[in-house]
Amino acid sequence: MNFEQKWLGCCVSDGKSGEFFNATVPGNIQADYAAANGFPDVNFSDTCKKFKSLENCGWIYKSELEYDAEEGDRVFFVTKGIDYEYDVILNSKKILHHTGMFSEVEIDITDELKNGKLLEIYIYPHPKREGADECRDQADQSCKPAVGYGWDWHPRLLVSGIWNETYIETRNSGTITDCRHSYELSQDLSTAEVCFDIKCEEDTKIELWDMSGKLIYSGKERRFTVENVNLWWCNGQGTPYLYKWQVSSASDTKCGKIGFRKISLEMNGDSWKYPDKFPKSRSNPPITVCLNGRNIFAKGSNWINPEIFIGTITRKTYENQLRLAKDANMNILRCWGGAIVNKEPFFELCDELGLMVWQEFPLACNNYRGTKEYLRVLKQEAIAIIKRVNQHVCHILWCGGNELFNCWSMMTDQSPALRLLNKLCYEYDENKPFIMTAPLMGMGHGPYSFSDFSTGKNVFELFRDCSNTAYTEFGISSIKERKYLEKIFSEEEINNPAPGTAWETHHAFNAFRVNGWLCADVIDEIFGKQDSLDDYIEKSHWLQCEGLKASFEEARRQKPNCSMAINWCYNEPWITAAGLALLNYPDSPKKAYYAVKDALRPVMPSLRIENFNYTFNEVAYVEMWLLNDSTDEVSDTLSLYVEADGEKRHIADWNTGVVCANTNAQGHKLRISLPYTREQKIILTVEGKCGKSEYVLLLKEPKDSKPLPHALNKKKKKKGLEKIDL
Amino acid sequence: MNFEQKWLGCCVSDGKSGEFFNATVPGNIQADYAAANGFPDVNFSDTCKKFKSLENCGWIYKSELEYDAEEGDRVFFVTKGIDYEYDVILNSKKILHHTGMFSEVEIDITDELKNGKLLEIYIYPHPKREGADECRDQADQSCKPAVGYGWDWHPRLLVSGIWNETYIETRNSGTITDCRHSYELSQDLSTAEVCFDIKCEEDTKIELWDMSGKLIYSGKERRFTVENVNLWWCNGQGTPYLYKWQVSSASDTKCGKIGFRKISLEMNGDSWKYPDKFPKSRSNPPITVCLNGRNIFAKGSNWINPEIFIGTITRKTYENQLRLAKDANMNILRCWGGAIVNKEPFFELCDELGLMVWQEFPLACNNYRGTKEYLRVLKQEAIAIIKRVNQHVCHILWCGGNELFNCWSMMTDQSPALRLLNKLCYEYDENKPFIMTAPLMGMGHGPYSFSDFSTGKNVFELFRDCSNTAYTEFGISSIKERKYLEKIFSEEEINNPAPGTAWETHHAFNAFRVNGWLCADVIDEIFGKQDSLDDYIEKSHWLQCEGLKASFEEARRQKPNCSMAINWCYNEPWITAAGLALLNYPDSPKKAYYAVKDALRPVMPSLRIENFNYTFNEVAYVEMWLLNDSTDEVSDTLSLYVEADGEKRHIADWNTGVVCANTNAQGHKLRISLPYTREQKIILTVEGKCGKSEYVLLLKEPKDSKPLPHALNKKKKKKGLEKIDL
Repeated sequence: MNFEQKWLGCCVSDGKSGEFFNATVPGNIQADYAAANGFPDVNFSDTCKKFKSLENCGWIYKSELEYDAEEGDRVFFVTKGIDYEYDVILNSKKILHHTGMFSEVEIDITDELKNGKLLEIYIYPHPKREGADECRDQADQSCKPAVGYGWDWHPRLLVSGIWNETYIETRNSGTITDCRHSYELSQDLSTAEVCFDIKCEEDTKIELWDMSGKLIYSGKERRFTVENVNLWWCNGQGTPYLYKWQVSSASDTKCGKIGFRKISLEMNGDSWKYPDKFPKSRSNPPITVCLNGRNIFAKGSNWINPEIFIGTITRKTYENQLRLAKDANMNILRCWGGAIVNKEPFFELCDELGLMVWQEFPLACNNYRGTKEYLRVLKQEAIAIIKRVNQHVCHILWCGGNELFNCWSMMTDQSPALRLLNKLCYEYDENKPFIMTAPLMGMGHGPYSFSDFSTGKNVFELFRDCSNTAYTEFGISSIKERKYLEKIFSEEEINNPAPGTAWETHHAFNAFRVNGWLCADVIDEIFGKQDSLDDYIEKSHWLQCEGLKASFEEARRQKPNCSMAINWCYNEPWITAAGLALLNYPDSPKKAYYAVKDALRPVMPSLRIENFNYTFNEVAYVEMWLLNDSTDEVSDTLSLYVEADGEKRHIADWNTGVVCANTNAQGHKLRISLPYTREQKIILTVEGKCGKSEYVLLLKEPKDSKPLPHALNKKKKKKGLEKIDL
Repeated sequence: MNFEQKWLGCCVSDGKSGEFFNATVPGNIQADYAAANGFPDVNFSDTCKKFKSLENCGWIYKSELEYDAEEGDRVFFVTKGIDYEYDVILNSKKILHHTGMFSEVEIDITDELKNGKLLEIYIYPHPKREGADECRDQADQSCKPAVGYGWDWHPRLLVSGIWNETYIETRNSGTITDCRHSYELSQDLSTAEVCFDIKCEEDTKIELWDMSGKLIYSGKERRFTVENVNLWWCNGQGTPYLYKWQVSSASDTKCGKIGFRKISLEMNGDSWKYPDKFPKSRSNPPITVCLNGRNIFAKGSNWINPEIFIGTITRKTYENQLRLAKDANMNILRCWGGAIVNKEPFFELCDELGLMVWQEFPLACNNYRGTKEYLRVLKQEAIAIIKRVNQHVCHILWCGGNELFNCWSMMTDQSPALRLLNKLCYEYDENKPFIMTAPLMGMGHGPYSFSDFSTGKNVFELFRDCSNTAYTEFGISSIKERKYLEKIFSEEEINNPAPGTAWETHHAFNAFRVNGWLCADVIDEIFGKQDSLDDYIEKSHWLQCEGLKASFEEARRQKPNCSMAINWCYNEPWITAAGLALLNYPDSPKKAYYAVKDALRPVMPSLRIENFNYTFNEVAYVEMWLLNDSTDEVSDTLSLYVEADGEKRHIADWNTGVVCANTNAQGHKLRISLPYTREQKIILTVEGKCGKSEYVLLLKEPKDSKPLPHALNKKKKKKGLEKIDL
């Protein structure tokens, strides 16, 4: 039986302890301190900067332990994770020194308890590599996620403390202290050989029920066979089938869920055809998710910390966000390496919702050099992560970390840390794919703006011209709507967006680029100078919606050469003033969320449009597609319409014929002479039985032309639209 | 004390044993059988085909053991390798079943010897994956090198048997049964912490001497420090310094050599600059050999089996070939994965000669699927290979195998075999670079012909236009000179080179391409139809020499973006009729050997010539370079000459200025209007204090022009050559 412990915390600065305050466990000691000291909401204005002075403090947690032990019981201190370096002290005696927040710790404290019940945990100051600049570089010799050291969408705000489940447990010989399952599927995937690895001194019974509640297995054998397995499928491909298991001894019970699936990475489309000329290098590595023998187009988003105070994350934090991801037709989340490895409820929910999880180790954008101490902690942390996460059927891919093979990180295939991770994943989870980092050869990261400065192209043009195997980061920013700005800024602040203000703190300036995520320069370039903040806000959402649709749909059109589209990013850890996420903190969808949801429908009509912005009377080429990521074959007749100034005209129809499951169909390329319009907007619509897709494009006067009359004689227009036979 | 055992062998076919014949140990049972049955020389004509009928036979070795054991001694059967699957049978009792030719085996047979001394070894038929075509595919579930299953320069001829040292050893408590060394260098490379791992029941003494014979260490401590270490350097960069060690007990002694060096792979040139555009993939992986902190241009050749009958290889087999490699200014050999991992003397000689060794595991051009049994044997074999080879300072790189990430193999980064090899190399040799295969991203394999059919370019044009990080296979074939043809063909055969004859057996046809390594089509295309075999032979050597020079020198000119040039291939396992090797079997240099030796001189003048074949009066652009792979800074004045019809003219001089160690200097680009000549040949020469380089190019009439008079009035020639100021 576990008692709720009451915890107090205090700050240790310059060797002196401050006053004790109530501490929430699990939680973050900095959040407790802020609450005790009357800090305003961390989201508001520059509040986050108040935490700067706490960075080099130590912290003490203390608790007078409560527990109930019978004769012969052993009493254990158990933690699922304390962040980051800490001592465990019982009755003033140090009983453990530990480094690493993902490894679980169990200590038998029975004997020591005879001397008293005062448990203290001393949290060391945050790890910072000596000599490193005050930025993520400081994290490059630790396994603490780098994001808290400052990112372009996360303030510099470092947290620590008892961030995960931590309790006193009394154990007897019937206590089940560990319970893990593994399985092997038969070649035809119909039968699973299940194996439970149980730590318990007494006999245990295992029971397994299917989703209908039918008992499938009951017995003492820890290896048993499940026939006629119901496989687990990701969202859109079938039921995320889970079996319920329970392991019980005379005095203890553990339960959970288990799903069965086969996972591999397969080559993309015609990757084996290249290279086809001497001197030949290698073919692109495989990145197509193959689930239960079926190649899946993986579509989803990058998942980051849903809170700055990661210790405060609960099942509730995850619930709505993950439900929304499923509703948005996503089937994968990439858990980015700069962030934490999420708490258990995250994976439990992903199991249930059919969301596949790509899990990175806590390495991101740094050169994690393989010093002995770093590798020791990494090994310990990685083993803990692997053994926990591989219990979840949703987990389909290990990745060493984020963007490690690029010049801003400078790690390579030879880096000991990555060779170690490859080795450990092979040892502890050998049937799971492993990649050292993303992007790999053939994969693409970026752009992060509607107009890309590296190529001079906008996302319509850029994705059209690319042929990557996977787009695992790409994004477009929008400015927060007023109701959110009002939560983070004073009235005065709202009306003065400028560098050096709280707008900059909230990433609107000097984040990623000098122009930050406000991206006013991009809007100015495309639409011209805007009159008001509201106009900028509106335009930014327009670009984010149309840009993300163009990116996601083009990635899908490139199937099977492309097999993955994962935008940057899904959620945000606090309320940014502008940014790329699809959700406003904590979990309310932006307009772009709905645009992405639309672009990810399993079956949908889609248009390949060559550009976003056209001028009056210009010719546009538009290609009709039927995208099918479903398990059904479909056929449809798609109709294309052009709408301008409120008038909608039918252009062409296309009978798709039969389109196989998980396969797209490419239709006609249409040449459209665009009209003159009053409004600087034109809407292309393609629809059929399978649904309707709308694209809202910019149509404006040529820059150097004389102003055109706003009301044009429609009869004078050129023959607007013609179909090209292909 | 080891006695020479007398061995007999016999063939087991359809369950019946044949007559016993003398067997050589180490050796190959098929060679013994051939000798006993009067087979002609395997090199001659179609002799190799006679071995076909032996493929599915089993073989028995037997020996009445001789040994000398005192009271209390234990008697061991020891083998360094038996090829491939075998039983060890003592007095008709099976005492071992083993699969794998690289793992050593020791069996204590003391007790069994009381019943008799008849040792038999039963060799199973060669492993062949069921259902595979009769080619290398049959090797894709075994760790037997694939080359014997047939390659484009190796006949289909499978060998097996006791291929490596195998003996009876009597042991007492003083016997040193194993002795391995490892070391760690200090940051500044001045101090080595040496560790000897010795298996001996009694006390041992360790002694270490430097190259002058001075005793550096003597003591019982198995960990000790060597101060002021003399580092081991590869050929051209310094002395391949080796220390001699001896470990002795009261009754046994083991000795060997140890060298100290630091090795890593570093990024090539400006690799971190790319990719520079969104969507960004990764930078090219590092392939620059960094020896003792110094980036080295690795230049050498691909090493293959020096014999078909690998069991017959001795130190003598290696000696001359390796000496020649050193003399050719090579500093690296790539031990290709289709071949054996060489016997100990190979590595000992490479240690001594300063030849760095890139060692591949026995995987080549196949998809080695990770079945449990395959992975079990691979693990056992790989551990044996790693623990043996890592004792040699010459060894600098592990590689999973040859061309595994290309369409003809279809393995990927996810293949369990390669993940396993990464893991084992990391565990047993963690400071040694490991690559899963070659080529990797950025590296290049091919072309294998002077005129490349995949691009339509010749090697002058092709290499000029490439920018690979490493060229680790490229080659040009030549036809054997008559004296070699006479060794392998009858007079009649020589004069009738045609498909379906022994010429095809010896790879002149239907090897790699339909036109085989004879490459008559290439010669016809460049020079026109030739009158005689001798003309074809002569032209093929011309192309091989000039082509290899152009390839090697261009690779060197691309330093530091390119860091490696390793041609295909160095040696050959038998006398081919035509092929790409630099040596004629067994070890006599071809003309191309000398051309390559020239192209690899540490300091040399070099010309970047845009093409090999020009027409009269055409303009050629030629760029002068000074290539410096030496450890000295150099400066020189290089002079360019053009020689035609015996007349040599001076064109230009270039003062290189000071050129740093291991750095090249790029000089002027010269525009040369080529003359009319009587001979279809023009020689460009560049020379200075550092040496002279000559390039013999083809100069001929334009195809569609009227024949030109053979004797031209030289005065009428255009101003031939002019220097462009840069």
